[in-house]
Amino acid sequence: MRDAAASRDSIMEHAIAEFAAQGVAGARTASIAEAAGVNKALLYYYFKDKESLYSASLHAVFSGLFENVLPMLQSSLSPGEKILRLARIHFEYLLNHPYYPRLIHQELSRVCSTGEPSEGFRKVASMHFAPMHRVGLQTVQDGIVCGEFRKVAGPHVLSTVVGMNVFYFTSAPIMRITRGVDPFSPECIRKHIASTLDFIGAALFVDREYGIRLAKKIASARSVLPREARDTRGRGNGNKIGHAAQ
Amino acid sequence: MRDAAASRDSIMEHAIAEFAAQGVAGARTASIAEAAGVNKALLYYYFKDKESLYSASLHAVFSGLFENVLPMLQSSLSPGEKILRLARIHFEYLLNHPYYPRLIHQELSRVCSTGEPSEGFRKVASMHFAPMHRVGLQTVQDGIVCGEFRKVAGPHVLSTVVGMNVFYFTSAPIMRITRGVDPFSPECIRKHIASTLDFIGAALFVDREYGIRLAKKIASARSVLPREARDTRGRGNGNKIGHAAQ
Repeated sequence: MRDAAASRDSIMEHAIAEFAAQGVAGARTASIAEAAGVNKALLYYYFKDKESLYSASLHAVFSGLFENVLPMLQSSLSPGEKILRLARIHFEYLLNHPYYPRLIHQELSRVCSTGEPSEGFRKVASMHFAPMHRVGLQTVQDGIVCGEFRKVAGPHVLSTVVGMNVFYFTSAPIMRITRGVDPFSPECIRKHIASTLDFIGAALFVDREYGIRLAKKIASARSVLPREARDTRGRGNGNKIGHAAQ
Repeated sequence: MRDAAASRDSIMEHAIAEFAAQGVAGARTASIAEAAGVNKALLYYYFKDKESLYSASLHAVFSGLFENVLPMLQSSLSPGEKILRLARIHFEYLLNHPYYPRLIHQELSRVCSTGEPSEGFRKVASMHFAPMHRVGLQTVQDGIVCGEFRKVAGPHVLSTVVGMNVFYFTSAPIMRITRGVDPFSPECIRKHIASTLDFIGAALFVDREYGIRLAKKIASARSVLPREARDTRGRGNGNKIGHAAQ
């Protein structure tokens, strides 16, 4: 018999997969319990209801990113190095957690239908996105004050860094059709990281040549994501329904 | 009695709204016929089945963008002016057609669940996205050859231009929570256009100061979208379930 922690982990893992595929409205707790090999009573013992399970799933997937990003943004690196590393860490995290962009898409579909994000998503946004946004804004502000960055709009820079990465995943099915390439081949991934960092380096820094050089250095380094963040909860059966299947 | 064209247009308009809200799987032709004030037989007279109606709806929404973008990209403007205008036209088109990003989101949810985009989406991608991508790539290449642009990766530049805009809509519900602002207020819209064009101008041009000046000029001009593209099919009842409700 599995111990309690293993059962709870298994429920969570299958819940994340189900919510990513079906959205919170379409997900069925019976299917989650069955996939996790537990009975529904045990699922409801750990999680009060479907909404609670959904909140816990969002929390598990999203908190991992912020645990990697926040300490880096609060370190003694220069603001320029922080923003360029943020672009790379964020991309690698998405790459290693196919459920992350899918849960976001499902939330947006919900917004399309109902006009409102879910309560669970509101909580995750307040708890994780808002603090990261504040620290990110402070980093851009620090870069402007110390003369490393041009006088740019902080919210726009952060939105650009995150948006360039998110759109890579969003547009993958279109890219396959219009360009006939696999966006998740090592070659395409390497090019995306290099081009994204180059673009940010060229746009953001007062000393443009320095920004471009720093971008090249950070893009060509080995993975900037700490080892333990490369395969954690939220990845699930990535090979079966991971990015490669999109 | 309405004439045939008006009935067909009404079916299409309500179909776009229904597909944007429910996705192709969730959409019901009975609801579309009822909303359009026609019987189901007439709907099936004009559109063979739900998939055909969906293809026609995608075509109606997406072709409008390309009708605005292609002539501009094929005009005698400089490559730099073209790419900056592309960024602005694309954003304004999204802003005026709330169904555009929603139909894309619904397709992506479908990909999340089934691993495949719909047949209708494949057709639209081949017919509209692929030619625009080719002309866009040629524009970037022209800019590099004539010495206006740095040696950048064309696909990445296009993806950045489009992605910065799409993400603005994608992240609107998050922006409301983390920053407490309305992303669709005139002030936020103006800032997004100015910052996006400034970022592209600063990153892309060999002569950075020129790129930044040109970006400022194009960002501060009045709408670059031809008048007739500002309120066409695909907008539907924008006020009721438009961006403001997200």
